[in-house]
Amino acid sequence: MAPRELHRVAIIGSGNWGSAIAKIAAENTARHSDLFQQEVPMWVYEEQVNGENLTTIINEKHENVKYLPGVQLPVNLKAVPALIDAARDATMLVFCLPHQFIPNICRQLREAKVTGAGAFAISLTKGVDVTGDRIKIFADVIEEELGMPCCALSGANIANEVALNKFSETTIGYGTRSEGELWQKLFHTPQFHVQIIEDRAGVSLCGALKNVVAVAAGFCDGLGWGNNAKAAVMRIGLLEMKNFSMEFFSGVKAETFVQESAGVADLITTCFGGRNRLCAEAFVKTGKPFEQLETELLGGQKLQGVATADELHQFLKARGRVGGYPLFHVVYKISHENLDPAKLTAHL
Amino acid sequence: MAPRELHRVAIIGSGNWGSAIAKIAAENTARHSDLFQQEVPMWVYEEQVNGENLTTIINEKHENVKYLPGVQLPVNLKAVPALIDAARDATMLVFCLPHQFIPNICRQLREAKVTGAGAFAISLTKGVDVTGDRIKIFADVIEEELGMPCCALSGANIANEVALNKFSETTIGYGTRSEGELWQKLFHTPQFHVQIIEDRAGVSLCGALKNVVAVAAGFCDGLGWGNNAKAAVMRIGLLEMKNFSMEFFSGVKAETFVQESAGVADLITTCFGGRNRLCAEAFVKTGKPFEQLETELLGGQKLQGVATADELHQFLKARGRVGGYPLFHVVYKISHENLDPAKLTAHL
Repeated sequence: MAPRELHRVAIIGSGNWGSAIAKIAAENTARHSDLFQQEVPMWVYEEQVNGENLTTIINEKHENVKYLPGVQLPVNLKAVPALIDAARDATMLVFCLPHQFIPNICRQLREAKVTGAGAFAISLTKGVDVTGDRIKIFADVIEEELGMPCCALSGANIANEVALNKFSETTIGYGTRSEGELWQKLFHTPQFHVQIIEDRAGVSLCGALKNVVAVAAGFCDGLGWGNNAKAAVMRIGLLEMKNFSMEFFSGVKAETFVQESAGVADLITTCFGGRNRLCAEAFVKTGKPFEQLETELLGGQKLQGVATADELHQFLKARGRVGGYPLFHVVYKISHENLDPAKLTAHL
Repeated sequence: MAPRELHRVAIIGSGNWGSAIAKIAAENTARHSDLFQQEVPMWVYEEQVNGENLTTIINEKHENVKYLPGVQLPVNLKAVPALIDAARDATMLVFCLPHQFIPNICRQLREAKVTGAGAFAISLTKGVDVTGDRIKIFADVIEEELGMPCCALSGANIANEVALNKFSETTIGYGTRSEGELWQKLFHTPQFHVQIIEDRAGVSLCGALKNVVAVAAGFCDGLGWGNNAKAAVMRIGLLEMKNFSMEFFSGVKAETFVQESAGVADLITTCFGGRNRLCAEAFVKTGKPFEQLETELLGGQKLQGVATADELHQFLKARGRVGGYPLFHVVYKISHENLDPAKLTAHL
């Protein structure tokens, strides 16, 4: 039998989570040399750190000192400042970027036409893309922009814990099983368990919608309502996540939400840790608007749960379905229309 | 139409949770005077507090100063030191006792024959009753001992939060819907939401099995493994709870575990608060045996999760099914057979 072509993996993005998952991928390309080329290029948006290029630092020190400090990266992970160079000949593209960058990055890649034959992608990007009464997951955006199949990965994955090799699980949703299995080979380790399921939309939506529930959980914490109320809000939130996904996306499976790491487990992690919970708690306790808290606590980054609550509201209003999702609605009303947070459970 | 006979409610038990639920019940008998006699007797195991009878204190101060201090109880809730007097003419009996007392209390009630015609019961008792290869829920034990139908109530219900009127939810599993609806009338308030479902066994088993998962969650905390690992253990635990219940009890519904307060919500509350988590964390951090921690942290009370892990192990061994439940098994091995806690996830 002729030797099979080895897959070339490229990581598009190099933030906290991107660097952590790039570390695992590069460890595994070395481990599975029958499947993957060992070298893994990672596109790094070039910036200066103490007068040096971040890519230079990463390639010399094997550490992303800015976004994943203190973690040794494999020597076969190579920081690349030019997007097109990073993606050249790649057959497996890992997208781990803030969602607002996806369309532009995809356009550059499409025009450059540098990826390898039969390339396919995976999206680690959270969020949903809403325009009027139309909603999309980013795996679909990538599929359409690049004309290549795109899986989705999401799970209870605090990046630093994964990078430090603490036990974690994640979920990959695939369209074609053979692609799901290749992604599993690339990411699975004894300390990072990867389950693959045929539910791209479910996995993607878990990652987007959980942030809205985490805002509600943070309101509970801010109000001092205790563990019973917070657990109730999480339970109702998980149901709304499931019902919303099954109502507006075809092929979504109920089990994804209640059995997989992307579902119930990530919801738990996000509602007890995470910036959405933190800022929502501060919102109630300090009375400061979210814009101010984003500046003070997140260096100006938009809080994903609050933004997603707004997008969901616009979408549900356009569809005439606001009433079907009382928890999503009350999070929107509190965060965008000055409803008293103490009304959180009044209509659940 | 002739006026319907009013139901007479009796609370059997007066600990922390018993007193909290008695408060709600007595508030609701006053609210629904078309259904219930207003007076609610509560059986209190008599003891001395500062030289006075606890029943006297409760009836004079309307406060259970020993088990629910600081909470005003309704004046129509009446502490009664004699079990038989408390149960006399009762048609709705609420059992809220540690499980080891259930058989003896039921025997006394059966022999006294004082309950009203058509009486039925509800069990708030946690745990399972295992003998060899036979397993029972306490709602069934009560049904058999007393010859009356028995529902089950369980949920994300930290007693003090419920008593302080903080928002909470709970689940009642019924055999006959009309009974479930009467219990709902007795317990539902705007701040304590009661869902009723046709799944007595599922509700009961959630309350028992979650404690085993909470022990595993506490091990994670003790090991410092972080949020990803803890969420993974909880996810796997929830699946084993569901699978175990559906394998060994007929009529159990999968949704009970993943949609109801008794399921996922109570699991969350128990794995983040609760004595099982606390003692399991201390077990790892201090290396002290559980017997010693029970003495030091629980005043000698048995830790329910550790005891249940042992009972499940005996039962699963008798059935030849130990291998089907790796998380339950590893909790047993760590807590009863000195397995290194760091092996927690080795076989999941």
